[in-house]
Amino acid sequence: AENDRHATHNRALLNRKHTRAFNFISSPGAGKTTLLEKTLTALRARSVGCAVIEGDQKTDLDAQRIARTGVSVVQIETGRSCHLDAEQVHLALHRLDVPQGGLLFIENVGNLICPTEFKLGEHERLTILSVAEGHDKPAKYPLAFRNATVVVISKMDLLPYVDFDLVEARRLITGLNPKAPIFELSATTGDGMDEWFSWLQHRMPAAAREEMA
Amino acid sequence: AENDRHATHNRALLNRKHTRAFNFISSPGAGKTTLLEKTLTALRARSVGCAVIEGDQKTDLDAQRIARTGVSVVQIETGRSCHLDAEQVHLALHRLDVPQGGLLFIENVGNLICPTEFKLGEHERLTILSVAEGHDKPAKYPLAFRNATVVVISKMDLLPYVDFDLVEARRLITGLNPKAPIFELSATTGDGMDEWFSWLQHRMPAAAREEMA
Repeated sequence: AENDRHATHNRALLNRKHTRAFNFISSPGAGKTTLLEKTLTALRARSVGCAVIEGDQKTDLDAQRIARTGVSVVQIETGRSCHLDAEQVHLALHRLDVPQGGLLFIENVGNLICPTEFKLGEHERLTILSVAEGHDKPAKYPLAFRNATVVVISKMDLLPYVDFDLVEARRLITGLNPKAPIFELSATTGDGMDEWFSWLQHRMPAAAREEMA
Repeated sequence: AENDRHATHNRALLNRKHTRAFNFISSPGAGKTTLLEKTLTALRARSVGCAVIEGDQKTDLDAQRIARTGVSVVQIETGRSCHLDAEQVHLALHRLDVPQGGLLFIENVGNLICPTEFKLGEHERLTILSVAEGHDKPAKYPLAFRNATVVVISKMDLLPYVDFDLVEARRLITGLNPKAPIFELSATTGDGMDEWFSWLQHRMPAAAREEMA
Protein backbone atom coordinates (compact mmCIF):
# COMPACT_ATOMS: atom_id res chain seq x y z
CA ALA A 1 0.00 0.00 0.00
CA GLU A 2 2.88 2.34 0.93
CA ASN A 3 4.54 1.41 -2.38
CA ASP A 4 1.32 2.06 -4.34
CA ARG A 5 1.04 5.51 -2.75
CA HIS A 6 4.57 6.40 -3.94
CA ALA A 7 3.84 4.90 -7.37
CA THR A 8 0.72 7.07 -7.76
CA HIS A 9 2.76 10.12 -6.79
CA ASN A 10 5.48 9.23 -9.34
CA ARG A 11 2.89 8.77 -12.05
CA ALA A 12 1.35 12.18 -11.31
CA LEU A 13 4.78 13.81 -11.39
CA LEU A 14 5.57 12.18 -14.76
CA ASN A 15 2.17 13.08 -16.19
CA ARG A 16 2.70 16.74 -15.25
CA LYS A 17 5.92 16.62 -17.31
CA HIS A 18 4.20 14.71 -20.14
CA THR A 19 6.92 12.12 -19.72
CA ARG A 20 6.13 8.49 -20.49
CA ALA A 21 7.85 5.94 -18.24
CA PHE A 22 8.92 2.38 -19.04
CA ASN A 23 9.78 -0.30 -16.48
CA PHE A 24 12.25 -2.83 -17.98
CA ILE A 25 12.00 -6.28 -16.39
CA SER A 26 14.04 -9.39 -17.21
CA SER A 27 16.42 -12.04 -15.89
CA PRO A 28 20.01 -10.95 -15.29
CA GLY A 29 21.86 -10.70 -18.59
CA ALA A 30 18.84 -10.69 -20.93
CA GLY A 31 20.16 -7.53 -22.57
CA LYS A 32 18.23 -4.70 -20.89
CA THR A 33 21.18 -2.31 -20.77
CA THR A 34 22.36 -2.98 -24.34
CA LEU A 35 18.82 -2.51 -25.68
CA LEU A 36 18.64 0.72 -23.70
CA GLU A 37 22.00 2.01 -24.96
CA LYS A 38 21.00 1.46 -28.59
CA THR A 39 17.55 2.94 -28.03
CA LEU A 40 18.90 6.05 -26.31
CA THR A 41 21.42 6.66 -29.07
CA ALA A 42 18.67 6.39 -31.71
CA LEU A 43 16.35 8.68 -29.76
CA ARG A 44 19.11 11.21 -29.14
CA ALA A 45 19.76 11.43 -32.89
CA ARG A 46 16.06 12.35 -33.19
CA SER A 47 16.25 14.97 -30.40
CA VAL A 48 13.93 13.07 -28.09
CA GLY A 49 14.53 13.87 -24.42
CA CYS A 50 15.30 10.80 -22.32
CA ALA A 51 16.33 9.96 -18.78
CA VAL A 52 17.22 6.65 -17.13
CA ILE A 53 16.99 5.12 -13.67
CA GLU A 54 19.22 2.06 -13.20
CA GLY A 55 18.54 -0.59 -10.57
CA ASP A 56 21.09 -3.19 -9.50
CA GLN A 57 21.80 -5.12 -6.35
CA LYS A 58 25.30 -3.65 -6.45
CA THR A 59 27.62 -1.43 -8.59
CA ASP A 60 26.94 1.51 -10.89
CA LEU A 61 28.32 -0.32 -13.94
CA ASP A 62 25.08 0.14 -15.87
CA ALA A 63 24.79 3.85 -15.00
CA GLN A 64 28.35 4.31 -16.29
CA ARG A 65 27.36 2.65 -19.58
CA ILE A 66 24.23 4.78 -19.90
CA ALA A 67 26.07 8.01 -19.00
CA ARG A 68 28.30 7.47 -22.04
CA THR A 69 25.24 7.98 -24.28
CA GLY A 70 24.94 11.50 -22.83
CA VAL A 71 21.59 10.82 -21.13
CA SER A 72 20.83 11.85 -17.53
CA VAL A 73 20.99 8.74 -15.34
CA VAL A 74 20.70 7.83 -11.65
CA GLN A 75 21.86 4.47 -10.27
CA ILE A 76 20.00 2.85 -7.39
CA GLU A 77 21.82 0.08 -5.53
CA THR A 78 19.18 -2.11 -3.87
CA GLY A 79 21.59 -4.08 -1.66
CA ARG A 80 19.75 -7.19 -0.54
CA SER A 81 16.47 -6.24 -2.17
CA CYS A 82 15.46 -8.08 -5.35
CA HIS A 83 13.54 -5.20 -7.00
CA LEU A 84 13.18 -1.44 -7.21
CA ASP A 85 10.40 0.16 -5.20
CA ALA A 86 8.41 3.30 -5.91
CA GLU A 87 10.00 5.32 -3.10
CA GLN A 88 13.49 4.69 -4.50
CA VAL A 89 12.22 5.84 -7.90
CA HIS A 90 10.65 8.92 -6.31
CA LEU A 91 13.96 9.93 -4.75
CA ALA A 92 15.76 9.26 -8.05
CA LEU A 93 13.26 11.43 -9.95
CA HIS A 94 14.31 14.39 -7.81
CA ARG A 95 17.97 13.86 -8.73
CA LEU A 96 17.31 13.30 -12.46
CA ASP A 97 17.02 15.74 -15.29
CA VAL A 98 13.57 14.46 -16.33
CA PRO A 99 12.75 15.66 -19.84
CA GLN A 100 9.54 17.54 -20.61
CA GLY A 101 7.51 15.52 -23.14
CA GLY A 102 10.08 12.75 -23.36
CA LEU A 103 10.75 9.26 -22.14
CA LEU A 104 11.94 7.84 -18.84
CA PHE A 105 13.39 4.33 -18.82
CA ILE A 106 13.63 2.47 -15.52
CA GLU A 107 15.87 -0.59 -15.71
CA ASN A 108 14.81 -2.82 -12.85
CA VAL A 109 17.04 -5.28 -10.99
CA GLY A 110 17.67 -8.43 -13.08
CA ASN A 111 14.93 -10.71 -11.77
CA LEU A 112 11.86 -12.27 -13.43
CA ILE A 113 9.84 -12.52 -10.21
CA CYS A 114 10.10 -9.77 -7.57
CA PRO A 115 9.87 -6.67 -9.80
CA THR A 116 6.47 -7.81 -11.14
CA GLU A 117 4.86 -7.14 -7.74
CA PHE A 118 5.97 -3.51 -7.35
CA LYS A 119 4.50 -0.67 -9.39
CA LEU A 120 6.94 2.20 -9.82
CA GLY A 121 4.56 4.68 -11.46
CA GLU A 122 5.42 3.51 -14.97
CA HIS A 123 3.03 3.73 -17.94
CA GLU A 124 4.49 0.72 -19.72
CA ARG A 125 6.01 -2.49 -18.47
CA LEU A 126 8.50 -4.19 -20.79
CA THR A 127 9.46 -7.80 -20.16
CA ILE A 128 12.54 -9.04 -22.01
CA LEU A 129 13.26 -12.72 -22.69
CA SER A 130 16.59 -13.63 -24.27
CA VAL A 131 16.64 -16.65 -26.60
CA ALA A 132 19.57 -17.99 -24.54
CA GLU A 133 17.14 -18.51 -21.61
CA GLY A 134 14.87 -21.02 -23.38
CA HIS A 135 11.31 -20.83 -24.70
CA ASP A 136 9.76 -22.39 -21.56
CA LYS A 137 10.39 -19.33 -19.36
CA PRO A 138 6.99 -17.63 -19.89
CA ALA A 139 5.30 -20.79 -18.52
CA LYS A 140 7.65 -20.94 -15.54
CA TYR A 141 7.57 -17.21 -14.70
CA PRO A 142 4.06 -16.27 -15.83
CA LEU A 143 3.52 -13.04 -13.88
CA ALA A 144 6.34 -11.21 -15.64
CA PHE A 145 4.67 -11.89 -18.97
CA ARG A 146 1.03 -11.55 -17.87
CA ASN A 147 1.58 -8.05 -16.48
CA ALA A 148 3.68 -6.74 -19.38
CA THR A 149 2.38 -4.13 -21.82
CA VAL A 150 5.08 -5.13 -24.32
CA VAL A 151 7.42 -8.12 -24.65
CA VAL A 152 10.83 -8.24 -26.33
CA ILE A 153 12.52 -11.49 -27.38
CA SER A 154 16.17 -10.44 -27.34
CA LYS A 155 19.54 -11.79 -28.56
CA MET A 156 17.95 -13.09 -31.77
CA ASP A 157 21.49 -13.30 -33.20
CA LEU A 158 22.05 -16.32 -30.89
CA LEU A 159 19.02 -18.21 -32.26
CA PRO A 160 21.07 -20.53 -34.53
CA TYR A 161 23.18 -21.66 -31.55
CA VAL A 162 20.54 -22.32 -28.89
CA ASP A 163 17.55 -24.60 -28.38
CA PHE A 164 14.79 -21.98 -28.54
CA ASP A 165 11.43 -22.60 -30.24
CA LEU A 166 10.22 -19.17 -31.34
CA VAL A 167 6.71 -20.37 -32.23
CA GLU A 168 6.30 -22.00 -28.81
CA ALA A 169 7.64 -18.92 -27.00
CA ARG A 170 5.14 -16.70 -28.83
CA ARG A 171 2.32 -19.17 -28.12
CA LEU A 172 3.11 -19.18 -24.38
CA ILE A 173 3.41 -15.39 -24.18
CA THR A 174 0.21 -14.79 -26.16
CA GLY A 175 -1.60 -17.37 -24.02
CA LEU A 176 -0.73 -15.38 -20.90
CA ASN A 177 -1.12 -11.97 -22.46
CA PRO A 178 -3.02 -11.71 -25.75
CA LYS A 179 -2.70 -7.90 -25.94
CA ALA A 180 1.01 -7.20 -25.53
CA PRO A 181 2.94 -6.77 -28.78
CA ILE A 182 6.00 -9.01 -29.09
CA PHE A 183 9.21 -7.78 -30.71
CA GLU A 184 12.01 -10.05 -31.86
CA LEU A 185 15.30 -8.23 -32.05
CA SER A 186 19.03 -8.20 -31.63
CA ALA A 187 20.46 -5.01 -30.17
CA THR A 188 23.91 -6.28 -31.19
CA THR A 189 23.25 -6.74 -34.93
CA GLY A 190 20.42 -4.19 -35.13
CA ASP A 191 17.93 -6.73 -36.53
CA GLY A 192 14.36 -5.85 -35.55
CA MET A 193 15.40 -2.57 -33.92
CA ASP A 194 13.53 -0.40 -36.47
CA GLU A 195 10.20 -2.07 -35.65
CA TRP A 196 10.89 -1.63 -31.92
CA PHE A 197 11.77 1.98 -32.38
CA SER A 198 8.75 2.68 -34.56
CA TRP A 199 6.47 1.22 -31.87
CA LEU A 200 8.24 3.24 -29.17
CA GLN A 201 7.75 6.40 -31.18
CA HIS A 202 3.98 5.82 -31.22
CA ARG A 203 3.89 5.39 -27.42
CA MET A 204 5.56 8.73 -26.87
CA PRO A 205 3.75 11.85 -25.71
CA ALA A 206 2.44 13.91 -28.64
CA ALA A 207 4.90 16.74 -27.99
CA ALA A 208 7.91 14.48 -28.40
CA ARG A 209 6.43 12.82 -31.47
CA GLU A 210 6.06 16.18 -33.20
CA GLU A 211 9.67 17.04 -32.52
CA MET A 212 10.70 13.76 -34.19
CA ALA A 213 8.55 14.23 -37.30
CA ALA B 1 14.87 -18.11 12.22
CA GLU B 2 11.92 -20.39 11.43
CA ASN B 3 13.61 -21.18 8.09
CA ASP B 4 16.95 -21.90 9.79
CA ARG B 5 15.22 -24.33 12.16
CA HIS B 6 13.79 -26.29 9.23
CA ALA B 7 17.16 -26.16 7.44
CA THR B 8 18.94 -27.63 10.47
CA HIS B 9 16.33 -30.40 10.61
CA ASN B 10 16.80 -31.14 6.88
CA ARG B 11 20.55 -31.28 7.28
CA ALA B 12 20.25 -33.75 10.19
CA LEU B 13 17.88 -35.92 8.16
CA LEU B 14 20.28 -35.93 5.19
CA ASN B 15 23.28 -36.64 7.40
CA ARG B 16 21.52 -39.65 8.91
CA LYS B 17 21.13 -41.00 5.37
CA HIS B 18 24.74 -40.06 4.47
CA THR B 19 23.25 -38.09 1.58
CA ARG B 20 25.06 -34.99 0.37
CA ALA B 21 22.78 -32.16 -0.78
CA PHE B 22 23.45 -29.48 -3.40
CA ASN B 23 21.51 -26.24 -3.81
CA PHE B 24 21.64 -25.05 -7.47
CA ILE B 25 21.26 -21.27 -7.81
CA SER B 26 21.25 -19.21 -11.02
CA SER B 27 19.32 -16.78 -13.19
CA PRO B 28 16.42 -18.23 -15.19
CA GLY B 29 17.76 -20.12 -18.19
CA ALA B 30 21.41 -20.44 -17.10
CA GLY B 31 21.23 -24.19 -17.71
CA LYS B 32 20.57 -25.69 -14.27
CA THR B 33 18.19 -28.38 -15.53
CA THR B 34 20.32 -29.41 -18.50
CA LEU B 35 23.43 -29.67 -16.30
CA LEU B 36 21.38 -31.75 -13.88
CA GLU B 37 20.02 -34.07 -16.60
CA LYS B 38 23.51 -34.82 -17.90
CA THR B 39 24.91 -35.23 -14.39
CA LEU B 40 22.13 -37.62 -13.33
CA THR B 41 22.60 -39.75 -16.43
CA ALA B 42 26.34 -40.00 -15.78
CA LEU B 43 25.82 -40.83 -12.09
CA ARG B 44 23.15 -43.41 -12.91
CA ALA B 45 25.57 -45.20 -15.23
CA ARG B 46 27.88 -45.42 -12.21
CA SER B 47 25.11 -46.71 -9.90
CA VAL B 48 25.15 -43.62 -7.67
CA GLY B 49 21.82 -43.02 -5.94
CA CYS B 50 20.36 -39.59 -6.66
CA ALA B 51 17.19 -37.64 -5.98
CA VAL B 52 16.04 -34.21 -7.11
CA ILE B 53 13.85 -31.42 -5.77
CA GLU B 54 12.74 -28.94 -8.42
CA GLY B 55 11.67 -25.39 -7.60
CA ASP B 56 9.80 -23.14 -10.02
CA GLN B 57 7.36 -20.31 -9.70
CA LYS B 58 4.98 -22.36 -11.84
CA THR B 59 4.75 -25.65 -13.85
CA ASP B 60 6.32 -29.07 -13.35
CA LEU B 61 8.18 -28.89 -16.69
CA ASP B 62 11.55 -29.42 -15.03
CA ALA B 63 10.34 -32.35 -12.91
CA GLN B 64 9.05 -33.99 -16.11
CA ARG B 65 12.49 -33.58 -17.68
CA ILE B 66 14.24 -35.02 -14.62
CA ALA B 67 11.78 -37.92 -14.30
CA ARG B 68 12.84 -39.07 -17.77
CA THR B 69 16.32 -39.79 -16.38
CA GLY B 70 14.69 -42.32 -14.01
CA VAL B 71 15.58 -40.38 -10.86
CA SER B 72 13.10 -39.74 -8.02
CA VAL B 73 11.94 -36.12 -8.24
CA VAL B 74 9.48 -33.80 -6.49
CA GLN B 75 8.40 -30.47 -7.98
CA ILE B 76 7.67 -27.51 -5.73
CA GLU B 77 5.67 -24.66 -7.26
CA THR B 78 6.47 -21.52 -5.25
CA GLY B 79 3.69 -19.37 -6.72
CA ARG B 80 4.56 -15.76 -5.95
CA SER B 81 7.64 -16.62 -3.93
CA CYS B 82 11.04 -16.01 -5.50
CA HIS B 83 12.93 -18.85 -3.76
CA LEU B 84 12.56 -22.25 -2.12
CA ASP B 85 12.41 -22.34 1.67
CA ALA B 86 13.56 -25.06 4.05
CA GLU B 87 10.03 -26.06 5.07
CA GLN B 88 9.09 -26.76 1.44
CA VAL B 89 12.23 -28.86 1.12
CA HIS B 90 11.38 -30.68 4.35
CA LEU B 91 7.93 -31.64 3.02
CA ALA B 92 9.48 -32.69 -0.31
CA LEU B 93 12.04 -34.89 1.47
CA HIS B 94 9.16 -36.91 2.93
CA ARG B 95 7.73 -37.52 -0.55
CA LEU B 96 11.08 -38.36 -2.17
CA ASP B 97 12.95 -41.60 -2.44
CA VAL B 98 16.11 -40.18 -0.83
CA PRO B 99 19.05 -42.48 -1.53
CA GLN B 100 21.24 -43.82 1.27
CA GLY B 101 24.82 -42.62 0.72
CA GLY B 102 23.96 -40.73 -2.44
CA LEU B 103 23.32 -37.24 -3.70
CA LEU B 104 20.35 -34.89 -3.49
CA PHE B 105 20.13 -32.02 -5.95
CA ILE B 106 17.84 -29.11 -5.18
CA GLU B 107 17.24 -26.88 -8.19
CA ASN B 108 16.14 -23.55 -6.78
CA VAL B 109 13.85 -21.04 -8.51
CA GLY B 110 15.68 -19.17 -11.28
CA ASN B 111 16.82 -16.07 -9.42
CA LEU B 112 20.28 -14.70 -8.54
CA ILE B 113 19.11 -12.82 -5.44
CA CYS B 114 16.38 -14.30 -3.21
CA PRO B 115 17.62 -17.92 -2.96
CA THR B 116 20.95 -16.75 -1.51
CA GLU B 117 19.21 -15.69 1.74
CA PHE B 118 17.51 -19.02 2.52
CA LYS B 119 19.41 -22.08 3.69
CA LEU B 120 17.67 -25.31 2.75
CA GLY B 121 19.88 -27.73 4.70
CA GLU B 122 22.27 -28.20 1.79
CA HIS B 123 25.96 -29.10 2.19
CA GLU B 124 27.02 -27.39 -1.03
CA ARG B 125 25.78 -24.32 -2.81
CA LEU B 126 26.37 -24.19 -6.57
CA THR B 127 26.00 -20.88 -8.39
CA ILE B 128 25.79 -21.11 -12.18
CA LEU B 129 26.57 -18.22 -14.53
CA SER B 130 25.93 -18.68 -18.24
CA VAL B 131 28.28 -16.89 -20.65
CA ALA B 132 25.17 -15.45 -22.35
CA GLU B 133 24.52 -13.36 -19.22
CA GLY B 134 27.77 -11.36 -19.38
CA HIS B 135 30.92 -11.33 -17.26
CA ASP B 136 29.79 -8.40 -15.08
CA LYS B 137 27.13 -10.41 -13.23
CA PRO B 138 29.29 -11.45 -10.23
CA ALA B 139 29.89 -7.75 -9.50
CA LYS B 140 26.20 -6.91 -9.81
CA TYR B 141 24.87 -9.91 -7.84
CA PRO B 142 27.71 -10.52 -5.38
CA LEU B 143 25.90 -12.54 -2.70
CA ALA B 144 25.14 -15.43 -5.04
CA PHE B 145 28.85 -15.80 -5.74
CA ARG B 146 30.17 -14.95 -2.27
CA ASN B 147 28.06 -17.66 -0.60
CA ALA B 148 28.74 -20.39 -3.16
CA THR B 149 30.89 -23.44 -2.39
CA VAL B 150 31.33 -24.06 -6.14
CA VAL B 151 30.74 -21.96 -9.27
CA VAL B 152 29.96 -23.18 -12.78
CA ILE B 153 30.37 -21.02 -15.88
CA SER B 154 27.89 -22.67 -18.25
CA LYS B 155 27.02 -22.60 -21.96
CA MET B 156 30.71 -22.37 -22.90
CA ASP B 157 29.66 -23.45 -26.42
CA LEU B 158 28.17 -19.94 -26.85
CA LEU B 159 31.45 -18.18 -25.98
CA PRO B 160 32.39 -17.41 -29.62
CA TYR B 161 29.04 -15.64 -30.14
CA VAL B 162 28.76 -13.48 -27.04
CA ASP B 163 30.65 -10.63 -25.38
CA PHE B 164 31.96 -12.50 -22.32
CA ASP B 165 35.44 -11.94 -20.87
CA LEU B 166 36.33 -15.21 -19.17
CA VAL B 167 39.41 -13.79 -17.42
CA GLU B 168 37.39 -10.90 -15.98
CA ALA B 169 34.56 -13.23 -14.88
CA ARG B 170 37.05 -15.44 -13.03
CA ARG B 171 38.73 -12.38 -11.50
CA LEU B 172 35.39 -11.07 -10.18
CA ILE B 173 34.30 -14.46 -8.81
CA THR B 174 37.66 -15.14 -7.14
CA GLY B 175 37.66 -11.63 -5.67
CA LEU B 176 34.34 -12.36 -3.96
CA ASN B 177 35.09 -15.95 -3.12
CA PRO B 178 38.72 -17.12 -3.27
CA LYS B 179 37.91 -20.67 -2.12
CA ALA B 180 35.17 -21.89 -4.46
CA PRO B 181 36.39 -23.92 -7.42
CA ILE B 182 35.18 -22.64 -10.80
CA PHE B 183 34.20 -25.01 -13.61
CA GLU B 184 33.84 -23.97 -17.23
CA LEU B 185 31.60 -26.35 -19.12
CA SER B 186 28.97 -26.94 -21.75
CA ALA B 187 26.33 -29.51 -20.83
CA THR B 188 25.25 -29.44 -24.49
CA THR B 189 28.60 -30.35 -26.07
CA GLY B 190 29.99 -32.17 -23.02
CA ASP B 191 33.09 -29.96 -22.83
CA GLY B 192 34.37 -29.68 -19.27
CA MET B 193 31.85 -32.18 -17.92
CA ASP B 194 34.49 -34.75 -16.96
CA GLU B 195 36.24 -32.26 -14.64
CA TRP B 196 32.90 -31.33 -13.08
CA PHE B 197 31.98 -34.93 -12.55
CA SER B 198 35.36 -35.82 -11.10
CA TRP B 199 35.00 -33.01 -8.55
CA LEU B 200 31.44 -34.10 -7.75
CA GLN B 201 32.64 -37.63 -7.14
CA HIS B 202 35.10 -36.38 -4.51
CA ARG B 203 32.35 -34.48 -2.68
CA MET B 204 30.23 -37.58 -2.34
CA PRO B 205 29.83 -39.57 0.87
CA ALA B 206 32.48 -42.30 1.20
CA ALA B 207 29.90 -45.07 0.77
CA ALA B 208 28.81 -43.82 -2.64
CA ARG B 209 32.40 -43.23 -3.74
CA GLU B 210 33.27 -46.84 -2.99
CA GLU B 211 30.34 -48.05 -5.06
CA MET B 212 31.64 -46.01 -8.00
CA ALA B 213 35.23 -47.20 -7.72
